[in-house]
Amino acid sequence: MRTIGFACTSAEAPLAPLHFDRRNPRPNDVVMEVLYCGVCHSDLHWVRNDWGHTPYPAIPGHESIGCVLEVGPEVTRHRAGDIVAVGCMVDSCMTCDQCRKGEEQYCREGGKHPIGMNGVYGGLDAVDGTPNMGGYSRHLVARQEFVLKVPAGLDTSRAAPLLCAGITTWSPLRTWRAGPGSRVAVIGLGGLGQMAVKLASALGAEVTVLSRSGKKEQEALALGADSFLASGDEKAMQEAASRFDLIIDTIPVEHDINPYLSLLDVDGTISLVGQVGPIPALSTLPLVYGRRNITSSLAGGIRETQELLDFCARKNILPDTKTIAIQDINEAFRQLEQGDTHYRFVIDMTTLKTD
Amino acid sequence: MRTIGFACTSAEAPLAPLHFDRRNPRPNDVVMEVLYCGVCHSDLHWVRNDWGHTPYPAIPGHESIGCVLEVGPEVTRHRAGDIVAVGCMVDSCMTCDQCRKGEEQYCREGGKHPIGMNGVYGGLDAVDGTPNMGGYSRHLVARQEFVLKVPAGLDTSRAAPLLCAGITTWSPLRTWRAGPGSRVAVIGLGGLGQMAVKLASALGAEVTVLSRSGKKEQEALALGADSFLASGDEKAMQEAASRFDLIIDTIPVEHDINPYLSLLDVDGTISLVGQVGPIPALSTLPLVYGRRNITSSLAGGIRETQELLDFCARKNILPDTKTIAIQDINEAFRQLEQGDTHYRFVIDMTTLKTD
Repeated sequence: MRTIGFACTSAEAPLAPLHFDRRNPRPNDVVMEVLYCGVCHSDLHWVRNDWGHTPYPAIPGHESIGCVLEVGPEVTRHRAGDIVAVGCMVDSCMTCDQCRKGEEQYCREGGKHPIGMNGVYGGLDAVDGTPNMGGYSRHLVARQEFVLKVPAGLDTSRAAPLLCAGITTWSPLRTWRAGPGSRVAVIGLGGLGQMAVKLASALGAEVTVLSRSGKKEQEALALGADSFLASGDEKAMQEAASRFDLIIDTIPVEHDINPYLSLLDVDGTISLVGQVGPIPALSTLPLVYGRRNITSSLAGGIRETQELLDFCARKNILPDTKTIAIQDINEAFRQLEQGDTHYRFVIDMTTLKTD
Repeated sequence: MRTIGFACTSAEAPLAPLHFDRRNPRPNDVVMEVLYCGVCHSDLHWVRNDWGHTPYPAIPGHESIGCVLEVGPEVTRHRAGDIVAVGCMVDSCMTCDQCRKGEEQYCREGGKHPIGMNGVYGGLDAVDGTPNMGGYSRHLVARQEFVLKVPAGLDTSRAAPLLCAGITTWSPLRTWRAGPGSRVAVIGLGGLGQMAVKLASALGAEVTVLSRSGKKEQEALALGADSFLASGDEKAMQEAASRFDLIIDTIPVEHDINPYLSLLDVDGTISLVGQVGPIPALSTLPLVYGRRNITSSLAGGIRETQELLDFCARKNILPDTKTIAIQDINEAFRQLEQGDTHYRFVIDMTTLKTD
């Protein structure tokens, strides 16, 4: 089917309108009109070819909220008119142990795709092998199992970042059982960090935000954190030894994790969800003297993502967002590159002219 | 009470006989005659002051098997004539959450001692604050809760290394639930590695030994491993991707763990029990794409150590040992420093002349 999106034609090119063909819907497919699409730093990495395997033209976008236009004859989960969402993945083998557990992000067939899973971009169509195109687009087509229900009551104009920033922090919070009685620290207050604070707090955990200086203390408390710890304050850091059960480290660039390890209690876990790539040398001492764990994770499964959407609707949790027109995406990317935005950009996709 | 041990008087001095005073037994104390004491690489680190806080004279030894000579009036667990053991710890606060859980090695008061727990050496007497003296000695005195029962049927001349090499590998195998259906890899075949293979195998896990070259394959299979993987064989390593649920890494020196991370399956864990100190930079990629964990641990608790001794007696598991006279300890240390001994040295402490 013919549609339109905002695409890059090379690593240096700005995003610009592009008419292109998506697959015609198959019997198990949902066709969705994209209403909102979140802007993630990964989108920028993708169009700039930072991971070295971007095929051009490239259309990013993995946080899409929209309305079902039509469904194939085998579709039972969704109907025309439903408000739905598509996140990072659009397909998986559905038969391996990971898929059967609802952990499609770790599908055994993921290695067939350049990004390790069948991504809404970065993945390849299971039938014809062509590169998938992301959500900065008028339409999306996906098999029904990878289309999420957006619960009534969840503000569709702000919910998009839950599909990546939300699930990327929700999944480790759930895996490592954040809840009443647990002490969670969040490092960094970007898109992921903000969600981690809101979600951990809504789960009932005691939440502390760590940031280098005291500048972000008010913002942290306003997001729902119970306390703030300046990681540049050596005395405060020493006093915080063994204080946390779980640290969600959302710092998106290479950084030394040694100062954080000793903040974990015995059997505590640090999940590095911001940085994909190298971390500097570290000492095993805090691991030995406290059986502490270093881990990470990749987004989350479909069932867990639906759980997150339902939880956010019930608890009225939404990311801090700034709505932009698609024509402003290159300026938004420029600001993302400079870092330190206090909100997540969400594109109002109705601003995409179809002619 | 007056006794004798083999002590170093400086980091450069050889071990030599030393008459010294242990505390007189308190009402809750057990006095034990040491019959056998294992020789651990940590003993060497301790007498050489490699950790920077050895007080001299220093008597090492934290794998002691012996016979109860007398007990204080409050002792209920042990009687004169019992065959017992003392491992790495001789005391803890007994009241904190970790102690109450039976994880005395992570006692909240451990920080009061130079080695992070009240060690048989490296710890300080709870009453008078004097440095504890280890098991290369005619006698040991310890409170009854830290004296283990050696089950009948366990060969006392070979069981000593279970108190450190044994428990250090048993604890992660238990924590990470090695057993039927789980796939365990062991890296390194020194004192710890050999125990890890024997214990994991006896627990019913499928065990693979990793070693750089193929030289150790026969030794690995003889120890009970199901298979062998040469870590220097790139193709074999690639084929082994995602193959293990748990890796017990016993390499005792700084080393790159990156090649091992991708051998772990989704949610798999590598426990670094050999190396205390720095590890080189690593990539978070295998952590992201598989929620893999990096951890370590410190010996094990008293309950878990007793469980190990009982298990080994039931399954007839013993370390490969070489019995030496105490007069040969300096030569044994020399061999340890050169590495690659295929057995654990155990000192026959009856060779220690008391005059």
